[in-house]
Amino acid sequence: MKPATDAPAATTNTTYAELCTRFREVATINSVGSLVSWDQETYMPPAAGAHRAEQMALLSSLSHARQTDPKIGELLSACEADSVLNDPASETGASLREMRREYDNATKLPAELVAELARTGSLAQDAWKDARAKSDFPMFQPWLEKMLGLSRQKAECLGAPSGELYDALLDLYEPGATATEIAGVFTPLRDRLATFVAELGDKGTRPDDSVLKINVSEARQHAFGQAVLKQMGFDFAAGRLDTTTHPFCSGMAPGDTRLTTRYDETHFTGALYGTMHEGGHGVYEQGLPKAPELAKYGTPLADSISLGIHESQSRMWENLVGRSHEFWTWAKPVADDLLGDAIRPYDAEAIFKAVNIVEPSFIRVEADEGTYNLHVMLRFELERAMLAGDLSVADLPGAWNEKVKSFLGLDVPDDANGCLQDVHWSFGLMGYFPTYTLGNLYAAQLWETINEQIDDLPGKVSRGELLPLLEWLQTNVYAHGRRYRAGELCERLTGKPLSADPLMRYLEGKIRPVYGL
Amino acid sequence: MKPATDAPAATTNTTYAELCTRFREVATINSVGSLVSWDQETYMPPAAGAHRAEQMALLSSLSHARQTDPKIGELLSACEADSVLNDPASETGASLREMRREYDNATKLPAELVAELARTGSLAQDAWKDARAKSDFPMFQPWLEKMLGLSRQKAECLGAPSGELYDALLDLYEPGATATEIAGVFTPLRDRLATFVAELGDKGTRPDDSVLKINVSEARQHAFGQAVLKQMGFDFAAGRLDTTTHPFCSGMAPGDTRLTTRYDETHFTGALYGTMHEGGHGVYEQGLPKAPELAKYGTPLADSISLGIHESQSRMWENLVGRSHEFWTWAKPVADDLLGDAIRPYDAEAIFKAVNIVEPSFIRVEADEGTYNLHVMLRFELERAMLAGDLSVADLPGAWNEKVKSFLGLDVPDDANGCLQDVHWSFGLMGYFPTYTLGNLYAAQLWETINEQIDDLPGKVSRGELLPLLEWLQTNVYAHGRRYRAGELCERLTGKPLSADPLMRYLEGKIRPVYGL
Repeated sequence: MKPATDAPAATTNTTYAELCTRFREVATINSVGSLVSWDQETYMPPAAGAHRAEQMALLSSLSHARQTDPKIGELLSACEADSVLNDPASETGASLREMRREYDNATKLPAELVAELARTGSLAQDAWKDARAKSDFPMFQPWLEKMLGLSRQKAECLGAPSGELYDALLDLYEPGATATEIAGVFTPLRDRLATFVAELGDKGTRPDDSVLKINVSEARQHAFGQAVLKQMGFDFAAGRLDTTTHPFCSGMAPGDTRLTTRYDETHFTGALYGTMHEGGHGVYEQGLPKAPELAKYGTPLADSISLGIHESQSRMWENLVGRSHEFWTWAKPVADDLLGDAIRPYDAEAIFKAVNIVEPSFIRVEADEGTYNLHVMLRFELERAMLAGDLSVADLPGAWNEKVKSFLGLDVPDDANGCLQDVHWSFGLMGYFPTYTLGNLYAAQLWETINEQIDDLPGKVSRGELLPLLEWLQTNVYAHGRRYRAGELCERLTGKPLSADPLMRYLEGKIRPVYGL
Repeated sequence: MKPATDAPAATTNTTYAELCTRFREVATINSVGSLVSWDQETYMPPAAGAHRAEQMALLSSLSHARQTDPKIGELLSACEADSVLNDPASETGASLREMRREYDNATKLPAELVAELARTGSLAQDAWKDARAKSDFPMFQPWLEKMLGLSRQKAECLGAPSGELYDALLDLYEPGATATEIAGVFTPLRDRLATFVAELGDKGTRPDDSVLKINVSEARQHAFGQAVLKQMGFDFAAGRLDTTTHPFCSGMAPGDTRLTTRYDETHFTGALYGTMHEGGHGVYEQGLPKAPELAKYGTPLADSISLGIHESQSRMWENLVGRSHEFWTWAKPVADDLLGDAIRPYDAEAIFKAVNIVEPSFIRVEADEGTYNLHVMLRFELERAMLAGDLSVADLPGAWNEKVKSFLGLDVPDDANGCLQDVHWSFGLMGYFPTYTLGNLYAAQLWETINEQIDDLPGKVSRGELLPLLEWLQTNVYAHGRRYRAGELCERLTGKPLSADPLMRYLEGKIRPVYGL
């Protein structure tokens, strides 16, 4: 890459600094927006809802106006023309690559299309709610057709080097990924998982699940969840854990990462794994280099890589740590103390087995570690086909039900338990589902490398020594911000491109013995 | 008032509507700022403090830029020139009067002075903390001199029709009030109160105070506080009650009024009266006409009149209701139920007497209803003299101690218990103290009228029927927003200008019998 101007480095660094200041201002506005959203889910009184929408609309217009300021385009072009700053191998080069992507994405979409997506999406979401309640797909069909049309327009505005519309949407969540690449990993995973799940059902012995149904008060579950988060290294001086209907993690600002969870007093593992999942997102957010003295806050170097990598962190703590025998070896005495009498009759082995039951079911959000990815991959295949024009919306229920039969061996009883179960498509969230499975794949592949590089990690986990794992992730993942794309980071750390093998090795290695195979 | 142009009303109404839209946008930004401040006091993790300051600075610069936009000046002038819109007897005329005041106040202060006040104020506040801890006035003296100098500059920029610098600052909190007018009411009040308090001490019988020292858990106090707030008509669907170090009320947005209180398990009346006080502010905020369909939100017509009137509402519920015999007639069985065993031995009469003990003390925030105003009035006299140049900062401790001796009959042991006790002056809050006593005066004067207009209010209060009082305040105070200035509202409602008589009649009438006089 040749410099287009000969501006001295000092001048250009000032230009880069000004660019960073502008990105930081946007980040600060967005951090306020995140707090306002968090409050809406946690403590806002119900009557405040109408004005809350005004607040959010104002903040997002303030943020958008700054993100799309032509001055950012000028500063970016000036920095890109400087070969030192824009060296692709340097931190600043990576930062400029991602700033360009964000600026282009923000400026490519016409305001009318954004407004139309928001307006129609809101109505379509209402229609979806009704349709799901009545399990009546034809009620929802015209709305999904509208949202598909608008999503296509959006993808056309964004454009994709591959020429596949799907990739333009996917890139919003998983920068640089393509549907073709993903399908190359997903297809073998799908077939091997379907075979594996069927084998467990046919030949394995289902573990006893009674420990999953014990009664534990919300207060006790909350205390246990906090103890586990502390053990994971989640910093409560820079974060919180609250209760909401839909659990989430908001890494809203430097020094401020907030998790939420929900409690069911007859199903303590729901809150536990929800908390560990959000905690995994949380320690990633806390580990990103956002501290003021680094001057990276607001730039891509202080931001997470992609939804797939974010999900790899949540799933690693939830599943690879939290559903391991070693975790329960440490956690059992803590649970005896904090969860109380009801769990005492069960040993670590019994709990470990119960939390690893794998069984086909209809609803994605209730699916276990073994079947979850099958739910995700069928959505990926269907949304990709709809965007490509290979599947009409009218044919969606039939196509859905066929795939459920083929992947999970189940007959869908109605559309509420089938293609109407998820809210995502109703407001135009397409190209997003694959990031869930990418997360599981990245987690498993990183996990093999981590186990090679940390001496006796299983032994450490069984003693509750989780900090060496956190430190590895801090050094190898969090510290880089978005310097590397997901695939690039995976290759740098594991020496191999993303593959289905580590995830299959992990699942088969853990779950076969649980089923006595 | 003659119209300067003959623009047709329709055009001007569009102009007024645009002006309102701009004020509403400022209000929406400020409502976000209020939420961010509330979160800082309630749930923010400690490590988030540094970035929180960035968020607040950004929001206040966004708000200030919009408040001082010259376009607002143009729109204002155009509306002021329309004799129909600007009829002083009309709602819009009142709105324009207050919009003009806000715009002028926002544009009169040079940005450098605002920044200097913030910077020096922050340092002076730190110096004050140290000086108070060591009871070392000379440590604080140079900082108070700086803040006094900056406050004078501020007052000069703002200007006051009376020519007295103090009035320019006072007007920020109590629009239209002057020090001369206030002194005309305060001076007789001061003398009568000092005599009254001395008489109680000399000739009265101090009631038993043991009920004030019973042990009540925080959870029980919280439940009782909530029950009292509900009885007052505070709407929990449009508000909350949380716990903070320093209690406050934030009427942050339409449908969103948040109260905070603090609990001391050995002093339940602290939280109770704190909660009723903030609840009084809260029902005022909830009663202001902010609902979207009124299109007044953001304009002065949906805003409170002054700090004095706001305080009249908090003190009315806290003292005139909450420290009455009638309140305890209703509240005693509720307290027996919610506060539990410890309060059961005391009857309503005993509690009523204990919460009405009047005794000179050094610290304003711990003062009772009888002596509180003496603390306020001595500050008013001293800050007025300092701003006028009649009292040097060096002479402040001596002047303070003399007034405490003269008003309260006490010898100040050290400056920590004297002129160093309040934080306000350290960050330049001068001209603010009198609003506390104005609140007590307005409350007592309104109370006499309310008792004439509501049939058997004491009987109603003793049965817990507080809604007729809330409805009276809603109709006569809250519904008008800032249409009338405080003094004007007082005369409209009570038929008389503000006077010390109602407050003295109320205090003497209630407390003499408590002391057996």
